[in-house]
Amino acid sequence: MERVGLILVLEAGLAAPRRNRIQERLRELGAEVRVVSGGERTYLEVSGQDLAIRTLNPAGWPGVDRAIPLTPAHPHASRRAGSDPRRATPIEVAGIAIGGDELVAIAGPCAIEDERRSIALAHEVREAGAKLFRGGAFKPRTSPYAFQGLEEEGLRILLKVREETGLPIVTEVMDATDLPRVAEVADLLQVGSRNMQNFSLLKRLGALDRPVLLKRGYAATIEELLLAAEYILSGGNHRVILCERGIRHAVGSAQVILDLGAVPDLRARTHLPILVDPSHGAGESSRVPALARAAAAVGADGLLVEVHDDPPRALSDGQQAITPAEFRRTLRVVESIRGIVRRAEGDDPEFGHDRLPGAVAAPGKD
Amino acid sequence: MERVGLILVLEAGLAAPRRNRIQERLRELGAEVRVVSGGERTYLEVSGQDLAIRTLNPAGWPGVDRAIPLTPAHPHASRRAGSDPRRATPIEVAGIAIGGDELVAIAGPCAIEDERRSIALAHEVREAGAKLFRGGAFKPRTSPYAFQGLEEEGLRILLKVREETGLPIVTEVMDATDLPRVAEVADLLQVGSRNMQNFSLLKRLGALDRPVLLKRGYAATIEELLLAAEYILSGGNHRVILCERGIRHAVGSAQVILDLGAVPDLRARTHLPILVDPSHGAGESSRVPALARAAAAVGADGLLVEVHDDPPRALSDGQQAITPAEFRRTLRVVESIRGIVRRAEGDDPEFGHDRLPGAVAAPGKD
Amino acid sequence: MERVGLILVLEAGLAAPRRNRIQERLRELGAEVRVVSGGERTYLEVSGQDLAIRTLNPAGWPGVDRAIPLTPAHPHASRRAGSDPRRATPIEVAGIAIGGDELVAIAGPCAIEDERRSIALAHEVREAGAKLFRGGAFKPRTSPYAFQGLEEEGLRILLKVREETGLPIVTEVMDATDLPRVAEVADLLQVGSRNMQNFSLLKRLGALDRPVLLKRGYAATIEELLLAAEYILSGGNHRVILCERGIRHAVGSAQVILDLGAVPDLRARTHLPILVDPSHGAGESSRVPALARAAAAVGADGLLVEVHDDPPRALSDGQQAITPAEFRRTLRVVESIRGIVRRAEGDDPEFGHDRLPGAVAAPGKD
Amino acid sequence: MERVGLILVLEAGLAAPRRNRIQERLRELGAEVRVVSGGERTYLEVSGQDLAIRTLNPAGWPGVDRAIPLTPAHPHASRRAGSDPRRATPIEVAGIAIGGDELVAIAGPCAIEDERRSIALAHEVREAGAKLFRGGAFKPRTSPYAFQGLEEEGLRILLKVREETGLPIVTEVMDATDLPRVAEVADLLQVGSRNMQNFSLLKRLGALDRPVLLKRGYAATIEELLLAAEYILSGGNHRVILCERGIRHAVGSAQVILDLGAVPDLRARTHLPILVDPSHGAGESSRVPALARAAAAVGADGLLVEVHDDPPRALSDGQQAITPAEFRRTLRVVESIRGIVRRAEGDDPEFGHDRLPGAVAAPGKD
Repeated sequence: MERVGLILVLEAGLAAPRRNRIQERLRELGAEVRVVSGGERTYLEVSGQDLAIRTLNPAGWPGVDRAIPLTPAHPHASRRAGSDPRRATPIEVAGIAIGGDELVAIAGPCAIEDERRSIALAHEVREAGAKLFRGGAFKPRTSPYAFQGLEEEGLRILLKVREETGLPIVTEVMDATDLPRVAEVADLLQVGSRNMQNFSLLKRLGALDRPVLLKRGYAATIEELLLAAEYILSGGNHRVILCERGIRHAVGSAQVILDLGAVPDLRARTHLPILVDPSHGAGESSRVPALARAAAAVGADGLLVEVHDDPPRALSDGQQAITPAEFRRTLRVVESIRGIVRRAEGDDPEFGHDRLPGAVAAPGKD
Repeated sequence: MERVGLILVLEAGLAAPRRNRIQERLRELGAEVRVVSGGERTYLEVSGQDLAIRTLNPAGWPGVDRAIPLTPAHPHASRRAGSDPRRATPIEVAGIAIGGDELVAIAGPCAIEDERRSIALAHEVREAGAKLFRGGAFKPRTSPYAFQGLEEEGLRILLKVREETGLPIVTEVMDATDLPRVAEVADLLQVGSRNMQNFSLLKRLGALDRPVLLKRGYAATIEELLLAAEYILSGGNHRVILCERGIRHAVGSAQVILDLGAVPDLRARTHLPILVDPSHGAGESSRVPALARAAAAVGADGLLVEVHDDPPRALSDGQQAITPAEFRRTLRVVESIRGIVRRAEGDDPEFGHDRLPGAVAAPGKD
Repeated sequence: MERVGLILVLEAGLAAPRRNRIQERLRELGAEVRVVSGGERTYLEVSGQDLAIRTLNPAGWPGVDRAIPLTPAHPHASRRAGSDPRRATPIEVAGIAIGGDELVAIAGPCAIEDERRSIALAHEVREAGAKLFRGGAFKPRTSPYAFQGLEEEGLRILLKVREETGLPIVTEVMDATDLPRVAEVADLLQVGSRNMQNFSLLKRLGALDRPVLLKRGYAATIEELLLAAEYILSGGNHRVILCERGIRHAVGSAQVILDLGAVPDLRARTHLPILVDPSHGAGESSRVPALARAAAAVGADGLLVEVHDDPPRALSDGQQAITPAEFRRTLRVVESIRGIVRRAEGDDPEFGHDRLPGAVAAPGKD
Repeated sequence: MERVGLILVLEAGLAAPRRNRIQERLRELGAEVRVVSGGERTYLEVSGQDLAIRTLNPAGWPGVDRAIPLTPAHPHASRRAGSDPRRATPIEVAGIAIGGDELVAIAGPCAIEDERRSIALAHEVREAGAKLFRGGAFKPRTSPYAFQGLEEEGLRILLKVREETGLPIVTEVMDATDLPRVAEVADLLQVGSRNMQNFSLLKRLGALDRPVLLKRGYAATIEELLLAAEYILSGGNHRVILCERGIRHAVGSAQVILDLGAVPDLRARTHLPILVDPSHGAGESSRVPALARAAAAVGADGLLVEVHDDPPRALSDGQQAITPAEFRRTLRVVESIRGIVRRAEGDDPEFGHDRLPGAVAAPGKD
């Protein structure tokens, strides 16, 4: 693994004894330190094997003006030098490759409400082109008085859906305590936006042999998303799929703004597949088709779409669900756009990447 | 013009004399007031011809719990009832229709730097498919020590570009004082993000017979953008084109986040054409092609793209400029995506609009 | 308990059959519905006993233009009608009243690192005026490579600190799985910012007889904070103390902005005590004293302060820790300010509350 | 003036010819470049007299990984080395020192509405302790249909107020075109939040001999505020007073959040006086007294407060205005808090500044 590096800019005119104390402290922490003298300032180049060095924030130490990381903070999530910067490393979920040539659609209701209707809906989305079925049994709700999901009964229905339709199941795990029983049902374990930094849960997922769909926190940076993925990856579970689902904003056109620019940005930094959730990103159904098209155009590896047979009657998030017919029409257009983007890349291997940031991107602000 | 309407929810158990004082105050302001009694609360339905009623914010008055507007605050900018909610009213700029069937690309450097190179670049972007040429003579820069534009000399070069290439000119006006001389050169007057709420400038633009490209403020809501447009429209100038260019965010993947969801949202609310600026929205050139594709996919009427023949040497915003060759390749793909989206709409007149918000959308928070 | 109320503004000109369908759907959900006819629009006044009605978001239903809640979504957290709107209901923690006349200071290191030094520090902060000792045994860290706390050993040291100094212990619980062992040690269980919406954890805390310090999520609204408290309160645990600790912002002067305006805002809405954490709110130690003073001036019931005997050597968050001597000096000034504010209130019972929002405040946007 | 400095971190393994091109380009721009070789990377230390070097953003150049500024971007606004980091350089406005020992209160209505009442109000706020009178003649309003101020008539009334009460006048200038006539009346020219980056206006203010009250943009960073001040200062006008008035946020407790932490942060970076506007920062009158107290506690040099004799009847911003009696009571408490803070500093010259960031603070992100 690459050595960790930092460059510290010392304060102008820092006295030698104070500089020595900083060097000494860094060496105590296991780092190698090299003094680099410029004409305007003195710098300390810090390096070592231990990533903990990066987390100590020497920028706050007396005498240190700035601390600039030279290597990414998440070696497992970072793109390998030399890999094709336009592609993910595909991850296999119950026989389906996510992050490969095909855009993969995952569809289903926000919450599982009823067995018969869930199965009917799963048949419909499968015929429309969905490759996996999503549905919540445990639902994180802002209010304790809102419908919290069917829980155990919801998991049972999901098993039935897979049995009847053959679609692999994507469902959310909210808590380490629920993990064993959810992991029995889910082919792909979803970690929701509010749990992106539930580190206890992430550590347990790292110990599992089951792929994880990690949704970006609605107020999380790209860097924090990659560090959350790193919790799982560094634990030994290599199957992490990222998902952009919109972030909170003071002035956005909806409750959240779908950060589609995060897709090319993540692509340059990580080899993990990147999905987009246009349903949460839109907040209301009339905007879902347009944002699903935009997600395909910007280069997402797949979509996570809320589909309900009777949206106004949905017990959760009905406002943003589309109908099976709308899903079918949307997916047809999405696939054409995917085709155009891929063909353009094929014609011109450099397409859209003339000045792609380096394979190992500069780490963002922590 | 539609009457203005508000519904006031009075505090529970408000005494009659206090309610009377509120009614009296509203009538002084020229409003008609109707008392509406429910079982839980009493409401005042307020209406009248004068839009100033909406701006008084009775929500802050003692005894008033909530004030809910019933009509949009910007009658000129709002979509007319019965109009096709998928289309803008096209606006003509020097013979080019913006907001019609064709996606219109506007391209050129951030700042005009040199006559010979500007003309050569204009020829290149025209051949690549751009319909208008953009370039700044007066540049708003965060630092007083940054290049501020060639000013008068820049305007002279823009005239020369139009003469040589026939491309209509888009350039920014920063100030009412500069308006007369900029308006002599510009076929389309650009109001930059920082000036979206320069109300003195907006009022003067309202008195002009020249189309205006109004960029959304980087921390402005959709509602504020439409109210800024209303300043120009209510002054008598009917040619306003809106432009989404990214908004500031705590956790976005770049300095700003391109709010592509604003395009369908604006489409439902206003009949004005909507452009997207993927260059400012990306912040760095490697992300521009992907965001330009996404803008086409989401339904924008056109693009505003920064193109420079030697981006690293650009005196302003070189980091986000793409080269003429990149622009050509990007525009080819963008046009294919535009075609797919339009064809899908043609096949199915309801495509993507099954549950479009009403023609007169609910006004956002002010 | 108060009945839940909503007022729905129907779309202008909505046909009777569509209106009937909305009424029918609401009645299916257990609500009473009253049609209220104004001159401009028709309204549905919805009421009932079941808070779930509020969570269904009828604003998204076809034909419904706006849905305005008339009652707070969190009956247990809300201030009771008639209570003194300037005071909290005090909560007792191991014999200390939080939310009463005295401002209560809670102090200690971010993470417990060493037994001997922890005990020495606890003696120092007690002598300086701290009433409880804080220190983390389980630490939520953005990076998996950062120090994660001493865990079990940290809990053991905290017990020792209480034994030696008599100070009650405040420590964080990160996960339902850890709850039993942390609850054995903590006199006040801290829920950190990232866990404010860990609903599984909140539900378990609701079943406990142990006070909870609930920190506001760094991107959570006041309304969401009160709904998170409601999860605990509605479970039967009445001892919840709120804590403002700074929220994330695009342009703030630090990583987060301390939202001191939230203190009077919360005061008007809830009877729960309100603390402020000036350490996380400052992000760097030099700003902690000024923000601690401001927290006292704005009316907080207490402070949560990170104190470390050697901040640059701290294994976690050293940048924002102050020394025991700084803490002592700061607390002296903080107490003088508290005194002035209380005396001014005593001289003039209406001080600062001339136009306080009603005891039952208008609910915020969900 | 200090030389400008930057340190560029080059990409790992950058070939010598590419490095040479970067050095050559920097030298073309007038910079001196020194190659500094570490063990992990190569760095270029760039320096020179010309601040334009800082504005070119070499971070975007191919081969440059990071560009770290070593000196502030605003030499005139920055605190001088060796100055007392707890104090501003006082600025004199019509005989009143702002930024000195006394906290200065500026009070008056949002908009001037009537001569007789304006004079009566001015007498009241003067007796309560205000040292200057504020009132808008030209009002920036989000909607074109809102009251836009009395304009010329408003200026005439302000002159009358000064004549009758002796209070110096603070009023807003919205536009370079209005500047001459507003400057005839105003003792202190206010630049509003929306105009903080109206660079044309700032340049004209730089050429004037009249003090300027520059309000922070509601979505502007501290760094941008200081650069906006630098536009005026570098033009030769040395009398600039800064004002924090709240910034927009996704989740704040009001429309804006008052960023009180900006006061100590600005104090460390700039010698300019710093006011706080608790009225815009509160958004509603009931929170104004608490935030005014907090502003004094955090160390502001003065307050800008909206006072109206009949707030619910105010034509602009009545929701956030307090009455003269409330203003009087608030100011009394504010002055006691100011006294405590100053005395504490007197007793202990190091109070609250034990670890103050260096006199020349690290520049923020641009």
